[in-house]
Amino acid sequence: MQVRHVDSIPVFALPGIRHQTLASQAGGIQAFEVWQQTLAPGSATPLHRHDCEEVVVFTGGEGIMHHAGTETPCAAGTVLLCQPNELHQIVNTGGEPLTLYGILSGSPVPVVDAEGREIPLPW
Amino acid sequence: MQVRHVDSIPVFALPGIRHQTLASQAGGIQAFEVWQQTLAPGSATPLHRHDCEEVVVFTGGEGIMHHAGTETPCAAGTVLLCQPNELHQIVNTGGEPLTLYGILSGSPVPVVDAEGREIPLPW
Repeated sequence: MQVRHVDSIPVFALPGIRHQTLASQAGGIQAFEVWQQTLAPGSATPLHRHDCEEVVVFTGGEGIMHHAGTETPCAAGTVLLCQPNELHQIVNTGGEPLTLYGILSGSPVPVVDAEGREIPLPW
Repeated sequence: MQVRHVDSIPVFALPGIRHQTLASQAGGIQAFEVWQQTLAPGSATPLHRHDCEEVVVFTGGEGIMHHAGTETPCAAGTVLLCQPNELHQIVNTGGEPLTLYGILSGSPVPVVDAEGREIPLPW
């Protein structure tokens, strides 16, 4: 059993995105990773995919998720269940931070763009 | 891609515990389950274990986690990383609901008590 507090977990950044890895192989969890992310107003993830399952749980703010030509509103309580290699993008369309947990069935998780090029991640 | 809202996800109850399964095999997620639970003031989970990894992310309230003779304070931002078959119990010791997400590397997840007897779960 490991106990952590989010305030002591390293913070990484991509433009407009604040990221913390709450759980991963480094903490002895092999089956999945748990990410906590905040997108600043006006910010977006790249359009991306990964070869693993992902569940996104939104906890605050307002945004949209682009997937297969559709736009889905996302706010506190929205849950996305993504199959492997589904291209998607999350955009903060509101005036407040868009906050979410991402759970991914890989550790580590390579992320690629729409053309299959690996997107380097700082975490 | 499936999109859900927590308000439309069935609610199950054990004494003092409100449970929703945000993601599982039923939603096409094979590698893990995501649970959202609220423990009422004074309530506790049973002392229990499961043969899979679990990560607990606390989002509000105040409680303690019993494990291996220790008591660990839990509040918003506390993250527990549990290895398979580690006996543990979560107790709400505060006056507000104790809220958490649990991510478990099994689907479905059999839960057993300290003597190895399966604890029937309504979800």
